[in-house]
Amino acid sequence: MTAHPRLSINQATIKHASLADALRTTADAGVGAIGLWREPVAEAGLDTAARMLADSGLRMSSLCRGGFFTSKEGPARRAALDENRRAIEETAALAAAGAPGSAAVLVLVAGGLPDGSVDIAGARTRVAEALAELEPEARAAGVTLAIEPLHPMYAADRAVVSTLRQALDLAEPFAPSSVGVVVDTFHIWWDPDVLPQIARAGAAGRIASYQVCDFLTPIPADALLARGMMGDGHVDFGSLTAAVQATGYAGDVEVEIFNAEIWAAEPAEVVARTVEAFERTIAIEPLSTTV
Amino acid sequence: MTAHPRLSINQATIKHASLADALRTTADAGVGAIGLWREPVAEAGLDTAARMLADSGLRMSSLCRGGFFTSKEGPARRAALDENRRAIEETAALAAAGAPGSAAVLVLVAGGLPDGSVDIAGARTRVAEALAELEPEARAAGVTLAIEPLHPMYAADRAVVSTLRQALDLAEPFAPSSVGVVVDTFHIWWDPDVLPQIARAGAAGRIASYQVCDFLTPIPADALLARGMMGDGHVDFGSLTAAVQATGYAGDVEVEIFNAEIWAAEPAEVVARTVEAFERTIAIEPLSTTV
Repeated sequence: MTAHPRLSINQATIKHASLADALRTTADAGVGAIGLWREPVAEAGLDTAARMLADSGLRMSSLCRGGFFTSKEGPARRAALDENRRAIEETAALAAAGAPGSAAVLVLVAGGLPDGSVDIAGARTRVAEALAELEPEARAAGVTLAIEPLHPMYAADRAVVSTLRQALDLAEPFAPSSVGVVVDTFHIWWDPDVLPQIARAGAAGRIASYQVCDFLTPIPADALLARGMMGDGHVDFGSLTAAVQATGYAGDVEVEIFNAEIWAAEPAEVVARTVEAFERTIAIEPLSTTV
Repeated sequence: MTAHPRLSINQATIKHASLADALRTTADAGVGAIGLWREPVAEAGLDTAARMLADSGLRMSSLCRGGFFTSKEGPARRAALDENRRAIEETAALAAAGAPGSAAVLVLVAGGLPDGSVDIAGARTRVAEALAELEPEARAAGVTLAIEPLHPMYAADRAVVSTLRQALDLAEPFAPSSVGVVVDTFHIWWDPDVLPQIARAGAAGRIASYQVCDFLTPIPADALLARGMMGDGHVDFGSLTAAVQATGYAGDVEVEIFNAEIWAAEPAEVVARTVEAFERTIAIEPLSTTV
């Protein structure tokens, strides 16, 4: 089976593979792109990781992840923002090393409520403030900060940004080239407002990444691991993908699955399953420029 | 400690108490109202339950619950709608038996995706159709159908109505006296749009019930049981209650908690804890008409 030309394997889907193995497994399956994570890149060292990516011939579709900047002013917040500055530099370096068509996109997960706080409005204000602080640096580096709304079940402990509408409102003050959004089917499939907001994101040129995976029930004991292979759960990929396609989105489509069973399987087998499920469920058109 | 005059104990909070015990425990604690569930009412028999409620001197703040009408046309859908018709009649009978100030409010949980279906848009259309079918009967019976948006983590298996905005859109074609919404802090606290939608609900006279409980993390293995006593979790009760108060909402405030630990405790102790937590966290004004 040939992989879809716009498929990208997010590294978290084959979480236990080293960077070297992830790159090789992805390329060997005929997949053209990969979404990287900062931790395995740091393990290899940025320069080495960039060289490995270049040697793989793969495009980088995004780097996961920055964000986690909801804490109040103080040393912890300063450290978080500095960490984001490093992530911006890494994104630029890796995108430059990847094959043509690589995206200098840094995925941002906002962060949850600070410990003991119920002030969600305040936490959201601090997300806006962090974007304002980081945006000039992203712009200078040619990096797009991609705000990812996370499923509302993570609002307390992971991301106070819960809907595409909210992410787009946060992005609005900035140029689309420096602040965009992630459209991740797992997080937003349930939203009654999702199709108009995808259209809005596309019209504003703000879809920085389209990520796909399914939503499983029952939600497992570790709620982070409710993700599943496309077709195994409740997501209507047809309508969501058609909405993204209709905007003219021309980037790669990342498959990002956190799932204990998938993590326990052989990476090559997971990638093969992903190639097959993508072909079956994600009816996005190939691009003439992506070959 | 005197109970707040607008506190209502939803029967699910003391799930293992019989109807008789729930009524007695609630009244003994000096609480003025109770939210009933259909199953324990059916166990006692409707006429007996109505008499018991009358004897208790309590107001009924709502009956839980109708809904579950997302299935496609056919015998299962007909049976579900007939069940809702019975629930409407029960609501009217119980509200008439309760103390003055009782609310003839039937809480509706929409239902999830039909087995094997990912057509969430279709399921939502069928919710609207069910409301259109039931509304004349609710109106004739003097009952308010109260659409409850449930947390999006239940969108697949429990309720395809996930936000207050969506519930209000569904209610819009009907008179507020026959179709309203439930504002339940657990389900909507995370919504960036929640305060404007509470205001909208109030302006339209559609707040049929205000339910409070907290949102706990980590989400337990049974995700339905992530509810907690007010103050134990992440909900900002101050801003939500102020928004409800500002609309002039004049009904009772129900505490509805599904929580394994709370269910395992003595009902009288749970009610006492509830009275205390309510006083501490729910700053809603007493009404001169509610004594």
